[in-house]
Amino acid sequence: MEQMTRRSVSPFMESILFEPHKLLDHGSLTVVSYDGIESDIAQAARTSYQGGTKTVSEDAALLRRLIRERHSSPLEQATIRAHIKMPIFVARQWIRHRMASINEVSGRYSVLDNEFYIPDAEQLAAQSNNNKQGRDKLLTAEEAETVQCVLRHDAMKAYAHYETLLGSGESESGFTGIARELARMNLSLNFYTTWVWRTDLHNLLRFLSLRMDPHAQYEIRVYANRLGEIVEGWMPNVYQAFKDFQLDGYAVSGPMLHILKMLLRNTIKNRGTVLMASMQETAERLYPQCSKREMTEFLHAIGVNSEE
Amino acid sequence: MEQMTRRSVSPFMESILFEPHKLLDHGSLTVVSYDGIESDIAQAARTSYQGGTKTVSEDAALLRRLIRERHSSPLEQATIRAHIKMPIFVARQWIRHRMASINEVSGRYSVLDNEFYIPDAEQLAAQSNNNKQGRDKLLTAEEAETVQCVLRHDAMKAYAHYETLLGSGESESGFTGIARELARMNLSLNFYTTWVWRTDLHNLLRFLSLRMDPHAQYEIRVYANRLGEIVEGWMPNVYQAFKDFQLDGYAVSGPMLHILKMLLRNTIKNRGTVLMASMQETAERLYPQCSKREMTEFLHAIGVNSEE
Amino acid sequence: MEQMTRRSVSPFMESILFEPHKLLDHGSLTVVSYDGIESDIAQAARTSYQGGTKTVSEDAALLRRLIRERHSSPLEQATIRAHIKMPIFVARQWIRHRMASINEVSGRYSVLDNEFYIPDAEQLAAQSNNNKQGRDKLLTAEEAETVQCVLRHDAMKAYAHYETLLGSGESESGFTGIARELARMNLSLNFYTTWVWRTDLHNLLRFLSLRMDPHAQYEIRVYANRLGEIVEGWMPNVYQAFKDFQLDGYAVSGPMLHILKMLLRNTIKNRGTVLMASMQETAERLYPQCSKREMTEFLHAIGVNSEE
Amino acid sequence: MEQMTRRSVSPFMESILFEPHKLLDHGSLTVVSYDGIESDIAQAARTSYQGGTKTVSEDAALLRRLIRERHSSPLEQATIRAHIKMPIFVARQWIRHRMASINEVSGRYSVLDNEFYIPDAEQLAAQSNNNKQGRDKLLTAEEAETVQCVLRHDAMKAYAHYETLLGSGESESGFTGIARELARMNLSLNFYTTWVWRTDLHNLLRFLSLRMDPHAQYEIRVYANRLGEIVEGWMPNVYQAFKDFQLDGYAVSGPMLHILKMLLRNTIKNRGTVLMASMQETAERLYPQCSKREMTEFLHAIGVNSEE
Repeated sequence: MEQMTRRSVSPFMESILFEPHKLLDHGSLTVVSYDGIESDIAQAARTSYQGGTKTVSEDAALLRRLIRERHSSPLEQATIRAHIKMPIFVARQWIRHRMASINEVSGRYSVLDNEFYIPDAEQLAAQSNNNKQGRDKLLTAEEAETVQCVLRHDAMKAYAHYETLLGSGESESGFTGIARELARMNLSLNFYTTWVWRTDLHNLLRFLSLRMDPHAQYEIRVYANRLGEIVEGWMPNVYQAFKDFQLDGYAVSGPMLHILKMLLRNTIKNRGTVLMASMQETAERLYPQCSKREMTEFLHAIGVNSEE
Repeated sequence: MEQMTRRSVSPFMESILFEPHKLLDHGSLTVVSYDGIESDIAQAARTSYQGGTKTVSEDAALLRRLIRERHSSPLEQATIRAHIKMPIFVARQWIRHRMASINEVSGRYSVLDNEFYIPDAEQLAAQSNNNKQGRDKLLTAEEAETVQCVLRHDAMKAYAHYETLLGSGESESGFTGIARELARMNLSLNFYTTWVWRTDLHNLLRFLSLRMDPHAQYEIRVYANRLGEIVEGWMPNVYQAFKDFQLDGYAVSGPMLHILKMLLRNTIKNRGTVLMASMQETAERLYPQCSKREMTEFLHAIGVNSEE
Repeated sequence: MEQMTRRSVSPFMESILFEPHKLLDHGSLTVVSYDGIESDIAQAARTSYQGGTKTVSEDAALLRRLIRERHSSPLEQATIRAHIKMPIFVARQWIRHRMASINEVSGRYSVLDNEFYIPDAEQLAAQSNNNKQGRDKLLTAEEAETVQCVLRHDAMKAYAHYETLLGSGESESGFTGIARELARMNLSLNFYTTWVWRTDLHNLLRFLSLRMDPHAQYEIRVYANRLGEIVEGWMPNVYQAFKDFQLDGYAVSGPMLHILKMLLRNTIKNRGTVLMASMQETAERLYPQCSKREMTEFLHAIGVNSEE
Repeated sequence: MEQMTRRSVSPFMESILFEPHKLLDHGSLTVVSYDGIESDIAQAARTSYQGGTKTVSEDAALLRRLIRERHSSPLEQATIRAHIKMPIFVARQWIRHRMASINEVSGRYSVLDNEFYIPDAEQLAAQSNNNKQGRDKLLTAEEAETVQCVLRHDAMKAYAHYETLLGSGESESGFTGIARELARMNLSLNFYTTWVWRTDLHNLLRFLSLRMDPHAQYEIRVYANRLGEIVEGWMPNVYQAFKDFQLDGYAVSGPMLHILKMLLRNTIKNRGTVLMASMQETAERLYPQCSKREMTEFLHAIGVNSEE
């Protein structure tokens, strides 16, 4: 149902509202509301210097600067609400992000559904040797099938016993079952749970920077990637800056910066001016989103000064 | 400008959006956005037991129970954003409520406005003797005028010197003024500041319970009262329950409860059944919002059992 | 190892430090550090009115008032750190309390232990009919044994398959197992996990008020009860006030307060002065911790005024 | 007074406990308690992979990795409590850091002290032209004196009128003054306030990264710098890593990284192996704190691969 509002409206968000997006074998992510668009965030940032409304391109430059300089508070002005269905072990990682509001289905109040996660063969990999928390080599098709079979069989049995423990219908023996809050302990961590989740854009980006990372577990990464697509549609300039500075960036330490400067010293001494001009030209061509100041500050950081 | 949305719409909130509400002599509160209506909160609460959509009256009963049993998490699903202009000493109390997102005008970036708060004569009262943090007897009209005069004179002089320190235009002597971040320290705590504030309904109610309290300072109370009216229009059932349980309620301690039970013992013994019936009838007549369970649990708490 | 410190020292806390306290069949709670004692909290509260150090009994009265008037910020000055071992379904409830710092054992980094929770027969009860989230009638001894048997058998099998999935040693077939982060999904919610948890006293009391409640699930309640004992030993006056006002208290709503006043009106009219005196005397005898002001305000709240 | 404790003890922190450290003209910072030392943080981090106690150098390497990979949760296990006296405009910036517990002196409860901040001549500078929120050229000695004179005169007058408004002693006219909560509004933002502040190490480092920054206002920077020294004494390895990665580091964006790689391509092609060896050798000599992995990952990030 559509109604009139005087609040800011994001056509992209309106287009995906209430549409479940399937993830994993039985999971999903459904945006159910949002508040704020890019100009609201820019406006909040301008509160600090009493600036008025600006053009879209001025907004874009400002939003980029907010991300670059980690001025996170204006990003907190926008919020998103979504229904999410995910395996319990994913929910356990997700909830570590405390700056969010959650209402989860309760195994004390209701009987949980008979839905569990079985990884695709393409996700069934051996323990990585050099990454203590990751996967490595894929299993053979045969091995994968065996593993899936074990997981499926155990989950089905767990659910069957869950039902037995709940005592549904088994009244002839007089056994009325145990309380739901007890019976659920027999379910395994790949059973699905559901919650409604509200967070703000700043905390959403923190979630993305940790969970879109290649080191994040695949099963939570698919949710993070979907949320990344949503932010990209909702807040394209914020997302571009977030991608440039956080997803694709690299935090160079002081010592490494020093080493880099030494490495570059000769290169620059010999071919300084020509090189700078060509770099600047390349940057402008390939990355129109970068501001001149961003480039200048970077060159300064690596010891390249146009004055020299 | 009105646009179509598929999000929940609150006609009341739409009607006040962007309309500045004047408070104190130069302050204001302007709601600029909101997210969620009562049915969204009820729905979030029902996530826990996988309950579907319900009628408005079922929602009302559920919302009341949330407030009564302090199930605060569903209330966090709704949010509000407002522009607020208030004296600095009010802002200093307000910001103690940490669970909110704030962007304030910065005295480092911009020159602050020449607006300051002068209390009305009806607010100029002497220090209370029995309430260490309150006011008591009003000043005489003459005294009030003197006080207002001192405050006004000092604020005007403070601003004049602020401008001098900023050095606006005084170029002939070569004095270019001091930085804005320094000059502002000459302004007093009754100068106005502005911020955009976003919080969720749960934290808003906490704010209200502390700041609508008669012990709160008058100058922040007028903002809290206005926010209370807004919550009442936006979420009438939530507000009614909040009023009943928090604003008008009384937290009886265990010892006092015991004393009360002893006090009531004879009363009840003698006229038990008749009394109970009449109380129940009175409650239903005067307070239709109270559930039967609420009444029963209360009677039980004070030692009245219908069985007896 | 003991060392000298100039920080505040709680003899009670020192006596339990590093001593694991057993809970459930394989769980435990071990306090590993703390910061602050009652006088630190009183001192923090006195910051607001620049009050100096006071006697122990003045501290006790102040602490009681903090709890009564919900001045929570001074309580945040004290912190506690503990190692906790609990079933995963308990950890899932626990982590809903967001204002805490947690480091949990990770099933991605390490192989989880073969320890799972099996409820005692005295805890195996049927679903409650009138409490949607609770237990009711105990199972018969025979039924309990059957339930325990099912739970134990499933958990053992789950762990055996977990080991198979990890592929420990089964190198002849070439199957090297799947990654730890995947294999763990086969474990059920009654397996134990461990974390180190740090929170402050204010948030600890909130945890206690929700989790010591008879409606909390038994398995988390045993942890909350133990933490309650710890707070009682560490901060006896704070705990007494917390018990009186929150555990044993009752939040009377405005409407119920009105009904109560009507109920009491006659009683008081007829036997007012005598009654009041006897109540006051009883209160002083039974509850020396209650202040005079507490009593007076309560009498006022229920419509009893000594002047009348 | 010294007492025995079984908690971790930091000799550095013990040595500064309760010793006020003077800052600005009348401000101060006094650490009154702390909880945790470096090995506690390392231990909390090891909870995740069930690792036992390790050597000091293993701890150092782990702590560095936590900072580098932004694993902030173990840093939250350590806390610090301090009394801080600072001008109100500094307090207003400070309180923006929400993840902390604060008890501030209240102008409602008590009469504020007659102490205000007057900047030294070396801090009195004109508004910067290219930095909207900063200072630039120093005033002349004469100008500085004039500015100080204006500030001092206004503050003294503000306080004198504050006292008048409080009505201290002026009983002959019958004017008993206005309430403290009202009178204080006449004080300016350079008056001193005091609070007790508790935060954890993670949030303390965030505070430092923003407030030790050269763009932070000088008056809050002196507090941040002092806190930086305290962290350095308390947690030397954490501080070194924080300095390397946050204070001295540079977050290179994806686009800039690409440009940098192009710039380096020829340099490396021509003199690759020799260059790498010399860089590695330099790094080891100048920055023994950097791990081999840190170096390798950095070289990889800028397109230098030893295999090539």
